[in-house]
Amino acid sequence: MLKELSMSDLGWNPLHGVPSYPAERYAVLADRIGGILRSRNDIVLMQAEAVVALEAAAVSLARPGLSALNIITSTYGGWFGQWLRRGGATVRDIVAEPGLPIEIEAVAKALDAGPHIDVLALVHAESASGSLNPLPEILALARARGVVTVVDAVASVGGHRLDVDDLGIDIAVIGPQKALGGPAGVSALSVSGRAWHLILRDGAPRDSILSLADQKSWVDGGRRGLPGTPAPLEFFALEKALDRIEAEGLENVVARHALAASATRAGLAALGAPAWVPAAKASNLVTAVPVPKALAPAALIAAAGQLGVELTEGVGTAPARLMRLNHTGPRAAFQTVLSNVVAYGAALRQAGHPSDIAAASEAISAAYRS
Amino acid sequence: MLKELSMSDLGWNPLHGVPSYPAERYAVLADRIGGILRSRNDIVLMQAEAVVALEAAAVSLARPGLSALNIITSTYGGWFGQWLRRGGATVRDIVAEPGLPIEIEAVAKALDAGPHIDVLALVHAESASGSLNPLPEILALARARGVVTVVDAVASVGGHRLDVDDLGIDIAVIGPQKALGGPAGVSALSVSGRAWHLILRDGAPRDSILSLADQKSWVDGGRRGLPGTPAPLEFFALEKALDRIEAEGLENVVARHALAASATRAGLAALGAPAWVPAAKASNLVTAVPVPKALAPAALIAAAGQLGVELTEGVGTAPARLMRLNHTGPRAAFQTVLSNVVAYGAALRQAGHPSDIAAASEAISAAYRS
Amino acid sequence: MLKELSMSDLGWNPLHGVPSYPAERYAVLADRIGGILRSRNDIVLMQAEAVVALEAAAVSLARPGLSALNIITSTYGGWFGQWLRRGGATVRDIVAEPGLPIEIEAVAKALDAGPHIDVLALVHAESASGSLNPLPEILALARARGVVTVVDAVASVGGHRLDVDDLGIDIAVIGPQKALGGPAGVSALSVSGRAWHLILRDGAPRDSILSLADQKSWVDGGRRGLPGTPAPLEFFALEKALDRIEAEGLENVVARHALAASATRAGLAALGAPAWVPAAKASNLVTAVPVPKALAPAALIAAAGQLGVELTEGVGTAPARLMRLNHTGPRAAFQTVLSNVVAYGAALRQAGHPSDIAAASEAISAAYRS
Amino acid sequence: MLKELSMSDLGWNPLHGVPSYPAERYAVLADRIGGILRSRNDIVLMQAEAVVALEAAAVSLARPGLSALNIITSTYGGWFGQWLRRGGATVRDIVAEPGLPIEIEAVAKALDAGPHIDVLALVHAESASGSLNPLPEILALARARGVVTVVDAVASVGGHRLDVDDLGIDIAVIGPQKALGGPAGVSALSVSGRAWHLILRDGAPRDSILSLADQKSWVDGGRRGLPGTPAPLEFFALEKALDRIEAEGLENVVARHALAASATRAGLAALGAPAWVPAAKASNLVTAVPVPKALAPAALIAAAGQLGVELTEGVGTAPARLMRLNHTGPRAAFQTVLSNVVAYGAALRQAGHPSDIAAASEAISAAYRS
Repeated sequence: MLKELSMSDLGWNPLHGVPSYPAERYAVLADRIGGILRSRNDIVLMQAEAVVALEAAAVSLARPGLSALNIITSTYGGWFGQWLRRGGATVRDIVAEPGLPIEIEAVAKALDAGPHIDVLALVHAESASGSLNPLPEILALARARGVVTVVDAVASVGGHRLDVDDLGIDIAVIGPQKALGGPAGVSALSVSGRAWHLILRDGAPRDSILSLADQKSWVDGGRRGLPGTPAPLEFFALEKALDRIEAEGLENVVARHALAASATRAGLAALGAPAWVPAAKASNLVTAVPVPKALAPAALIAAAGQLGVELTEGVGTAPARLMRLNHTGPRAAFQTVLSNVVAYGAALRQAGHPSDIAAASEAISAAYRS
Repeated sequence: MLKELSMSDLGWNPLHGVPSYPAERYAVLADRIGGILRSRNDIVLMQAEAVVALEAAAVSLARPGLSALNIITSTYGGWFGQWLRRGGATVRDIVAEPGLPIEIEAVAKALDAGPHIDVLALVHAESASGSLNPLPEILALARARGVVTVVDAVASVGGHRLDVDDLGIDIAVIGPQKALGGPAGVSALSVSGRAWHLILRDGAPRDSILSLADQKSWVDGGRRGLPGTPAPLEFFALEKALDRIEAEGLENVVARHALAASATRAGLAALGAPAWVPAAKASNLVTAVPVPKALAPAALIAAAGQLGVELTEGVGTAPARLMRLNHTGPRAAFQTVLSNVVAYGAALRQAGHPSDIAAASEAISAAYRS
Repeated sequence: MLKELSMSDLGWNPLHGVPSYPAERYAVLADRIGGILRSRNDIVLMQAEAVVALEAAAVSLARPGLSALNIITSTYGGWFGQWLRRGGATVRDIVAEPGLPIEIEAVAKALDAGPHIDVLALVHAESASGSLNPLPEILALARARGVVTVVDAVASVGGHRLDVDDLGIDIAVIGPQKALGGPAGVSALSVSGRAWHLILRDGAPRDSILSLADQKSWVDGGRRGLPGTPAPLEFFALEKALDRIEAEGLENVVARHALAASATRAGLAALGAPAWVPAAKASNLVTAVPVPKALAPAALIAAAGQLGVELTEGVGTAPARLMRLNHTGPRAAFQTVLSNVVAYGAALRQAGHPSDIAAASEAISAAYRS
Repeated sequence: MLKELSMSDLGWNPLHGVPSYPAERYAVLADRIGGILRSRNDIVLMQAEAVVALEAAAVSLARPGLSALNIITSTYGGWFGQWLRRGGATVRDIVAEPGLPIEIEAVAKALDAGPHIDVLALVHAESASGSLNPLPEILALARARGVVTVVDAVASVGGHRLDVDDLGIDIAVIGPQKALGGPAGVSALSVSGRAWHLILRDGAPRDSILSLADQKSWVDGGRRGLPGTPAPLEFFALEKALDRIEAEGLENVVARHALAASATRAGLAALGAPAWVPAAKASNLVTAVPVPKALAPAALIAAAGQLGVELTEGVGTAPARLMRLNHTGPRAAFQTVLSNVVAYGAALRQAGHPSDIAAASEAISAAYRS
């Protein structure tokens, strides 16, 4: 049985020095992450935000001779390709319309267009536009062609089904800070045997925060050179986030996000400001709505801010400018969904644009009652 | 300058043992409470919830020969009279209509009706019904007659102006867990010289958690027998709550509660379910609304609960049954006000009773925009 | 299964307000305290330091007509008698030599000397002098005479065996802040059926922080009037302390304190400054040593303080002045035992009094090696 | 004035989502680190342990054409050279005798031996052997030759004077987890204008956790792409560690470590087991002692562990095997120094090797008394 660590353990113990996160808890934590991902693959934990886990995946895979197809639906995809190229890989990018998911046909065509592809990388859900890539279909294409897949699931885990093993994802990268409602300073990757095979080939980068090969020994139960002193604060916070998720039930967490998304969309439609992407292509964490042409996003953000409601600008196909309503994690709740939409409606009206706050409130209440 | 204590200090230090709350921080904390109360009276901190501070005030004042007038507008008033009587005091109760404030005329009449009154006790704002007693008027009557006043301000501090010295309150009892958004396990009293005079007379109860006389020495800077080991957790949490209040500004905190109350009332009126007490007699922390006769409060609470909104039953004049909408502390915000009212409207409608959610949403948005 | 509460739950949740300690966790916590006490009696938790639990026991038992025998081995015993008398009980005190345990013969004689005794009260271990009362023998006398027993075990629980049911203790009062290494702002009582019978008779004090009768309903699973808002911080800290104790094993915790005590005594003897009470009558938490007549305790405390070692003055039979070496909780460890004794020896020497630091170090090392 | 963040802010706020560390606090924190380093250079904070900050320094400096002299006194130096080479730099290593500081003559000779050196890298104090490199002398040589200097001060900051600007260190890398007694998951670098000039040349690595160029914009007050979500837990813990350091006073912290080191050395000498490196070349954080040839370090570690004292093996010149006594951070105290040495003596004796525990205790007490 695990030794429970107390609040005082978060600090330091004069007799035993600065505490590090114990190896036996690391293993348990990895198993719990595996449960969230429905995966029996190795789980690598990183004491860094998820973008570092993404960089580590790219850096650890990249070699001269590696051929990658990189789907770009936001800045993150751009970075991923850049990291692969920096390591010597040959990378072909396919870029979606800004603010929209990739088309499955484009992926199929690209996979078959040239020499063999070793690795396919994509983001599952995009926070910048509220769009969702057609993950199962893309993965099916990749599996049929023996391509190793890397999925950035940071903005989808907990908000959408993500059965890593059933879907056949070789590397899934997640962070707890979105739908899981946890800390931002820790992240995790699931890594399949096929992915380890690519990573551990000759020339694997070593002795680096970005080396997944270094992390392999932690997964295997030992500890070598790096990382030296696992700081426990973020790991403890992750434990607590997983406690909450497991108490609520992962399927309930996903359903709560799906309800928040559909209620937000219903509210926006009733307001007279329908969502940017169609429901079938939409993220459950964020809903983006095009701002009427005559209006300034900054003014709408300021008006909503006066009510204490935080809206942010998104990224869409020019000339569409998007406003994002966030219903992620603890915000996937009636209170936030309702006040997001009503505040956006009030902001529109304050800017001289009609909006039916009343109908929106009715629609959201109805969505939550059904 | 104060030594800052760290999170690890909340636990225990193997070299120095279980930490207790340092005396010099106690003095600073007392001064900050004095600032919140706008009082230069002594501040007594109690490591217990506010109802214990009330009991301590009563127990410490009560003696055979003490004559008290006790205004009852809820259970707390009933307890206060009981504690005074248990200590031998002669107590006259005046009881308001259930769920309503006391009438000022009744207080004037009672003060002048019999032999000299030493102590007058009342609750400022009532959480059970959302009502507010006419504090300045009652205190003026008491001051004119040289009566020592005890005010339970637990449910008003932070939500209403409470200028203890200007108003001339001899003993004010507060807790941080309502409008101040702090911990529930610590409370405080301000005690005037006139009140100390009554408390420290012959026969003061001593060596007891309920003895304010014991606490006097802490206020005066020393430490004697009891309390022995001030546990710091609740005091640290109170410090943090005061940090937040001071950062926001006490007047802004009060204004935020006043806005939440007026927006809630506007929303309820638009919904077709006006608030229980008139605005001039209403608490800024909680708004109560009478439940339509044909409906069961429990069913409404359950319906709102399905939306994740917590409503609770209040206490009013029979046969009125009250539903309470809570806008206290962090809940004094647009999001909670809006979702409280809309959820109540949705619950009414689900029970077959008409309610104009749309108009309510408009009214609340308008109240926050103005 | 219990819902795990996170660090953020220690604060407050804008959507659900100030958290209170959940009833289902309360029951689990009570069971764990029962395990520490090896008792199936009801466990009452109090959100206050242990001296308040003692006061509550006295106040809840005291009635005109109740006859009590009160053993006084320190200030606490004096207070206990005073609380009983204040409630109308008839109390006979028997007082030990200052700084020494009570003699069993004195107890036997007092029990048989007068009219029937209803309640016998005593402290198990005394922190002021490091002495230990002969608990099993005294309890055997009381049980043979049908006397209800109240034991202040605050300074013995975790440091000595305390099998409440086997010993037949009717009310045991404990606090987590000594050998259990936990927080000081929470305490607990175990209450037998016989004790409840006395407490719940006509005239039980009610609606008070000091009313055990009020607490009975919490034990029975419900919640009534008081206490209203159980603040969770201290309860969470107690949970963590129990986690540590259970991980180490209660018997190991007791053994660790016994070793610290015997090593301290061996070190002091080698130093040339033997302990105050004989080993068989000594507390495992604190060891007191008589200060040589020519020396000032304050000077010795200051000299040890220069080494970062905290010694405190104890209370003994005049003219003996005692110095206390604390080896309680986390201080029951080689490091603290060694530095306590060496620092005391260095302080003696600095004051011009011989002391054999070298022999003391040898003796303590030997005690820990054996 | 800064808004104080509460414990609940460490978790997440349902209304405002996962908190990130606020930019204005970042600036204040950087200034405080600058104060510790006595430097007006830019301070870069990294949300990662200090070895990542070292890697970032190397990666950000390395380019084809860069010429570096790399002093190796432990594994860290080896890594630093490897990171520089991986980035294309030309690196010359000079390696000290294992477990000993570098000789100043060797550095002078290497600096003058070949083509111009751009960068000189070294570790200030070594934890593996308790040795200290002659930093001021080496820096003087480098400054005279216009060489940019990188100093790993992780194991010296807080334990030795480190006046970055007076010494002329261009990049100093520190972590709070040693003498500063803080968290291990955050680190910092001070970067001079000359160092920025090298880092920001064409070809600076970008969009990476390891890019100091990316961090420059944070230092300059803005925020760009990476890092996206500064997780606040480690930063808050660092704030608290700095509170403690500033309350004690940095000079007092250094003096406390110097005293712990000299007392440990005196104790070991009296024990009959003198320290490994001479006092003038010794770290104040760790003291290493050669293990007698006939004895197994593991057995000594186990024997000390039975007393609850943690000793660890060090790295020295073969065939010397070193045992390390740690007096870092909170362990720089009489209690730990005394029990470290006595436990080591007891372990020696248990292994059949003579050791004078008595004399060691005397010597340590005397060192602390003087």
